[in-house]
Amino acid sequence: MAVQHAENVDLLVCTCCRRQGAPGDAERAGTRLFRRLAERRLPGVTVRAVECLSNCSQGCTIALRGRGRWTYVYGRLDDGADVDTVLEGVAKYQATDDGVVPWRERPEHFRRNCIARIPPLPTLAAGDT
Amino acid sequence: MAVQHAENVDLLVCTCCRRQGAPGDAERAGTRLFRRLAERRLPGVTVRAVECLSNCSQGCTIALRGRGRWTYVYGRLDDGADVDTVLEGVAKYQATDDGVVPWRERPEHFRRNCIARIPPLPTLAAGDT
Repeated sequence: MAVQHAENVDLLVCTCCRRQGAPGDAERAGTRLFRRLAERRLPGVTVRAVECLSNCSQGCTIALRGRGRWTYVYGRLDDGADVDTVLEGVAKYQATDDGVVPWRERPEHFRRNCIARIPPLPTLAAGDT
Repeated sequence: MAVQHAENVDLLVCTCCRRQGAPGDAERAGTRLFRRLAERRLPGVTVRAVECLSNCSQGCTIALRGRGRWTYVYGRLDDGADVDTVLEGVAKYQATDDGVVPWRERPEHFRRNCIARIPPLPTLAAGDT
């Protein structure tokens, strides 16, 4: 059984991502995704708008990160249909110590649409700056 | 004129990336890229091997990161021909305060092959944990 942690994690949402074929002056799909996720108010999850996660050709795009955890970037999200998928993935990420959710336990969309991951920063030793 | 900083930054190199069409038992292209970059011993740059940056279909892959800086992931690198390009990009990244090198000043390969970027962690306020 996984130990449940309620530690703070960040859910970064790219507000610049466009839906393919959307006119240039339409509200960005990423902005809608951000608003829908921010409305859900998950305890311990800070939803942050980011102006460009630089995954423009494969949006919508989010990233999950937290201190001492691997950061994961996921793409090709639908701003409407994938809101619950993102929330499921965030909850599983939050329940880990290091951010690594076993592959089989990830939402199927996350399994197929991981764009990149970054290891956590090393813990500073005494005397480091 | 940009102010030059000699602050420590990390150059993360995915050692798992394969060259397209390479047999399964061959040394990974990412491992060669890591070795070639590590040999160059740039001051203030820590070259770290990472087992999978999860950009498998678009390797070789590196990431640049540092405290208080945006993290950038770049892909589609050749383990031989692009070593100097990576080093040029690292030096420019290191010379910034926040990790954001103006687009026109980036090496051309970096301009065309940015996989994702992640903003820095917020600075902790007094009392935060």
